[in-house]
Amino acid sequence: MAATGHTRILGIDPGLAATGWGLIEVRDNHLSFVADGTLKSDSRAALADRLAALFDGISELIETYAPDEVAVEETFVNANPKSTLKLGQARGVALLAPAKAGLPVAEYPPNLVKKSVVGAGHAAKEQIQMMVRTLLPGCAVETADAADALAVAICHAHHRQTRSLAEAAQ
Amino acid sequence: MAATGHTRILGIDPGLAATGWGLIEVRDNHLSFVADGTLKSDSRAALADRLAALFDGISELIETYAPDEVAVEETFVNANPKSTLKLGQARGVALLAPAKAGLPVAEYPPNLVKKSVVGAGHAAKEQIQMMVRTLLPGCAVETADAADALAVAICHAHHRQTRSLAEAAQ
Repeated sequence: MAATGHTRILGIDPGLAATGWGLIEVRDNHLSFVADGTLKSDSRAALADRLAALFDGISELIETYAPDEVAVEETFVNANPKSTLKLGQARGVALLAPAKAGLPVAEYPPNLVKKSVVGAGHAAKEQIQMMVRTLLPGCAVETADAADALAVAICHAHHRQTRSLAEAAQ
Repeated sequence: MAATGHTRILGIDPGLAATGWGLIEVRDNHLSFVADGTLKSDSRAALADRLAALFDGISELIETYAPDEVAVEETFVNANPKSTLKLGQARGVALLAPAKAGLPVAEYPPNLVKKSVVGAGHAAKEQIQMMVRTLLPGCAVETADAADALAVAICHAHHRQTRSLAEAAQ
């Protein structure tokens, strides 16, 4: 909890090609939009350099926006092991950057994120974007990745008081 | 290439529970053993903290032993997506740590590593350990993970001059 009485939550939806991020503020039960965006990596660059760019991008966001807590969407484990491995690599870096900055990191599975935002465990991308816009008036939500990141931040805002961060990180 | 005329190679075999590492020195065509070991993470800790411990462990090795180049084994993509995801997360951090230290990072698939050390693309763990001991007289090789890490360092020593690092990182 920040000294000013509000909590800033950075939500992250990790991916090697594109990582969505969204920052919200919680004051009592009121949520407000701060900023969102997408970190992209150059697919022609070497993997280690792409991961370093992702780490630097998230570290810069943390420095710029000074979030109090971070929430990361649990990667969807899909049928293609090569895609799962790529996502895993990006996700490892997305969890590491806030941990290295000394911030608590919570993780939420996609169906819980959807349930927090749409009210159901299964929802189309468009439904999530629409509900994120409704719950956070004034937010632009320019990409689906940014919408997913804002959704995981909203999910954390709903669960952070009933669920300990340590539990969420399991 | 270090100023003293030799090149130090750090080999890494990444894993979330245990990451093997091995350091060798190359002078002309001569390989010699420097050090090896295993970085273990506490399975009861939160994932972000385990990844931070792995990052710090590799960064400390780089600071202590000052390698010139780093070689990482390409993760074996196995049938279990959850295991693949875990490996991917550890692997992302193992690639990131040397990249953040400004070192070139090469990647090699397991069958090329085995071929470089044993002479065949398929080999039992014991064969790899035996050949690593033969190729690097005086090395202890206390764990299978450390042996695999030394094997990937040997593989890089054989391929670094014929294959550009950029190519190897594909």
